[in-house]
Amino acid sequence: MNAIHVIEGGITAPKGFAAAGAHVGLRRKRKDLALIVSEKSAACAAVFTTNAIKGAPILWNKEVLSGTDHVRAIVVNSAYANSGTGQPGLAHAKQMAQTTAGCLGLSPDEVLVASTGIIGIHLPIDVITAGIAHTAPLLDNTMESGTYAAEAITTTDTFIKQMAVEFEVNGTKVTVGAMAKGSGMVHPNMATTLGFLTTDLAIAPELLKTALSSVIVDTFNMISVDGDTSTNDMVVLLANGLANNPLIESEDDEYELFVHVLQMVLTQLAKSVARDGEGASKLIEVIVSGTESMDDARKCARAVVASTLVKAAVFAEDANWGRIVAALGNAGVAIEYDKLSISMFGNGLHVPLLLDGMPYWMDESICRSALQSNEVRFVICAGESQHQATAWGCDLTYDYIKKNGNYRAGQLTAKVGLVKEEGVA
Amino acid sequence: MNAIHVIEGGITAPKGFAAAGAHVGLRRKRKDLALIVSEKSAACAAVFTTNAIKGAPILWNKEVLSGTDHVRAIVVNSAYANSGTGQPGLAHAKQMAQTTAGCLGLSPDEVLVASTGIIGIHLPIDVITAGIAHTAPLLDNTMESGTYAAEAITTTDTFIKQMAVEFEVNGTKVTVGAMAKGSGMVHPNMATTLGFLTTDLAIAPELLKTALSSVIVDTFNMISVDGDTSTNDMVVLLANGLANNPLIESEDDEYELFVHVLQMVLTQLAKSVARDGEGASKLIEVIVSGTESMDDARKCARAVVASTLVKAAVFAEDANWGRIVAALGNAGVAIEYDKLSISMFGNGLHVPLLLDGMPYWMDESICRSALQSNEVRFVICAGESQHQATAWGCDLTYDYIKKNGNYRAGQLTAKVGLVKEEGVA
Repeated sequence: MNAIHVIEGGITAPKGFAAAGAHVGLRRKRKDLALIVSEKSAACAAVFTTNAIKGAPILWNKEVLSGTDHVRAIVVNSAYANSGTGQPGLAHAKQMAQTTAGCLGLSPDEVLVASTGIIGIHLPIDVITAGIAHTAPLLDNTMESGTYAAEAITTTDTFIKQMAVEFEVNGTKVTVGAMAKGSGMVHPNMATTLGFLTTDLAIAPELLKTALSSVIVDTFNMISVDGDTSTNDMVVLLANGLANNPLIESEDDEYELFVHVLQMVLTQLAKSVARDGEGASKLIEVIVSGTESMDDARKCARAVVASTLVKAAVFAEDANWGRIVAALGNAGVAIEYDKLSISMFGNGLHVPLLLDGMPYWMDESICRSALQSNEVRFVICAGESQHQATAWGCDLTYDYIKKNGNYRAGQLTAKVGLVKEEGVA
Repeated sequence: MNAIHVIEGGITAPKGFAAAGAHVGLRRKRKDLALIVSEKSAACAAVFTTNAIKGAPILWNKEVLSGTDHVRAIVVNSAYANSGTGQPGLAHAKQMAQTTAGCLGLSPDEVLVASTGIIGIHLPIDVITAGIAHTAPLLDNTMESGTYAAEAITTTDTFIKQMAVEFEVNGTKVTVGAMAKGSGMVHPNMATTLGFLTTDLAIAPELLKTALSSVIVDTFNMISVDGDTSTNDMVVLLANGLANNPLIESEDDEYELFVHVLQMVLTQLAKSVARDGEGASKLIEVIVSGTESMDDARKCARAVVASTLVKAAVFAEDANWGRIVAALGNAGVAIEYDKLSISMFGNGLHVPLLLDGMPYWMDESICRSALQSNEVRFVICAGESQHQATAWGCDLTYDYIKKNGNYRAGQLTAKVGLVKEEGVA
């Protein structure tokens, strides 16, 4: 396999992608509007939330993508989710696409829309449309522009999540760029994960979709911060072909290489989102193997990483594997207890906890040393099969409660006030 | 319908039931072993955890009840769950039944066993068998003995949960008594709900089972403290017939009255367990109506009450119904957003939040006043059907994290020490 190089930057790293991020008055000070534009119509693959109630941007995007598999631009606002907003919300999502199209000389059905923020409040649409007009002229293909966009889509993320990698396809350099925003309780009502990926790879749209779907299941679908899937979650991948590699039209070696790169990029972003979960002090990685099916392995890994009991134990640096057992038992999967083994890894230590269903003698001080790591891994073996899945999450801390205890009223008032007083910068 | 009177006491209120609770050295100071005995063989109905991994006491009880529907006694220990303990654990559960049977002149297969506490540690079985021998002579039908037993089964419950009611069946006075222990993160690894009910009603065993099954689904199965079903959960109902009412042999009016009483008692206990959830400051009641099926209503109510997002918002006294919407969307039920309405009740206030899918204007100070109540109710209407279900839970507080942050190592050391130093009092 060819070398894959991680390079600086994010969504503007591939050829032909410009981005912008600006403060347009939705939040107090931070950037709150992002644009991503491809200079050439790009093949588009997207996955959306499985929540039965979907935000207006999701509905707009699904409509657009039911008629085409190519788009040119994405507009994203933070602060308000435009979810639970009924017919006016749908009209607002459409207006965001129309305004973006108008500013960039595109058709509205070439523009996808994403919103993240408080559910159930109507968008201050005039602020947003003026904001789009303000942001469009800032579009640029520099690394800074990509970073500004990555900044504009965050909510209470404590760091920006972006990444870019280079690899070769038949001797041609191809680049993938990506950015994401973290989930967490963030401001009240916020719990959205957004991921946007760009690439200059030339690939048939159907294969692009297959690639994203095959990779999402073991990356973004394997993270849990607080157990709820938001109404607005989405991951969008654009491929504009400007690398000029020979078009990938079948599941050949080049396709497999691209899938591998995508897996790597989305795994990194997923781990960043988990690590930056609201109030988190530790990344938790749960690897489950030996189950009857891949799906069982995924269910088990997700059940453990999402368990409040497990999350609180990790925060407490307490190796109580009994909670892992209880969570596994609630995963909806048949478990043979006699074949179950659990080990813990942290700070370079490997601590066996349960061996073939029998409690293992634990040295409390070694357990505590392992758990003092800011990355704790549980490796769970449930049998002899080769099926294996990994899930990522974070611990449950005082800070998680705190960030949810002193927010909304003040936050809302401040925002509404700003919308009125400041308008668009 | 005849009057139903709530009376003082618990499991010893019905005729022919004796109980005892004592400190036998499993915990530092508090009572840790309970016995319940019927002077006559009692019809028995029981429901057990749905966790795929079941504690040894569950396995023992299932074996006993596969051969009979009558038992005489129940023995319960706290501090250790005897779960995740393999074959030795099964042998210990059997030994508890054998010792109890020996002390009371019964056969071991007339004795059910329950354990609650840390998962994955072998029972100090000598302490327990000596403890049973110590406790058996204390058996008594006084109200105090019932209360001692209720005390012995608690873990970090902040109050004892027991109840008794009287009603008339064909002119004969019948009594139902009950006790429960609360769930919560309690000590690390503890999250068990136990419920024990006694009655002197004469009823055919099959109908007793039908009655318990029909009532459990909307009571104990509708509470959530931290989302995990323990490996040791059980509810057991004994009916010894000593009230001498004409035997209930069909689903007649008397049967319906009994079901009604059972519903009332189990609802009260379920609410007590929810209210006393680890660190809880508020009881949350969620009523969902208008769904396509009863099962959908239950799923929705449980999803909302179990949502970390909703629980933290209630603690924060923040009326962010967007989190309720997100939780409903994750319930696995089709929701027509245009038909969705949500109201909040607390402190005598009724606050509409969402009406037919449109956000309702909210007065923040009224919202806050309602949420300052220690009982907050959300009433969710999803359509026009008559299906309705209620779930109970509690808020997520700093105290929840705290109680899980400073415990295990010290706790364990203290306990192991005690077992060695004190033995049985």
